[in-house]
Amino acid sequence: MPSLEFLRREPDIRAFSEGETIFKAGETGDCMYAIVEGAVNIKIDGAVVERLTAGGVFGEMALIDSSPRSATAVAASDCTLAAVNEKRFLRLVELTPNFALQMMRVITQRLRRSSHH
Amino acid sequence: MPSLEFLRREPDIRAFSEGETIFKAGETGDCMYAIVEGAVNIKIDGAVVERLTAGGVFGEMALIDSSPRSATAVAASDCTLAAVNEKRFLRLVELTPNFALQMMRVITQRLRRSSHH
Repeated sequence: MPSLEFLRREPDIRAFSEGETIFKAGETGDCMYAIVEGAVNIKIDGAVVERLTAGGVFGEMALIDSSPRSATAVAASDCTLAAVNEKRFLRLVELTPNFALQMMRVITQRLRRSSHH
Repeated sequence: MPSLEFLRREPDIRAFSEGETIFKAGETGDCMYAIVEGAVNIKIDGAVVERLTAGGVFGEMALIDSSPRSATAVAASDCTLAAVNEKRFLRLVELTPNFALQMMRVITQRLRRSSHH
């Protein structure tokens, strides 16, 4: 997993309880999340397709192409997430080329896994 | 398709004849391509999963995560391609945040299509 640890220091930190839905497939998304503590399950059609832990990011697709959420995210444990909205995301891409590269790696790795199903 | 038209002005332009293989799945990849003229078929296990025309890009995954080519690319017509190697790719991400965003959109769109198969 690429290191996106610095996202833990983002100012918008949100807490979710185990089992709580963070967002649902089909919803409009206005932010991505980085996991500061805990674990999150990504589900498509009810099946867990990815389990993410501290340092992992999710929800970036809705920011990148302004489409509805492609999956549902559920807190797999009590967790703390850093939320990054579109404005901040664009700023990070502009200021931190390494952030852009790491986001590309995250999405590419998901695409490779998805293509092998 | 996001506009990556400016890639047509890259200096490393390569010509392929209809039916010619540009790269094969499993090979090591050292560049991505933007189509200047013509069309390219992207194949996985012999099936065409995407047909790209002028302005389209492919082969970026191997640059982003240094993994082998995930698919085979074949010239669907006589075509002219702009090749972008890793050094130039990293430079474009650094100098042109919009390039990074557009590459993220390309990969995200592929992932959305792939997830819906």
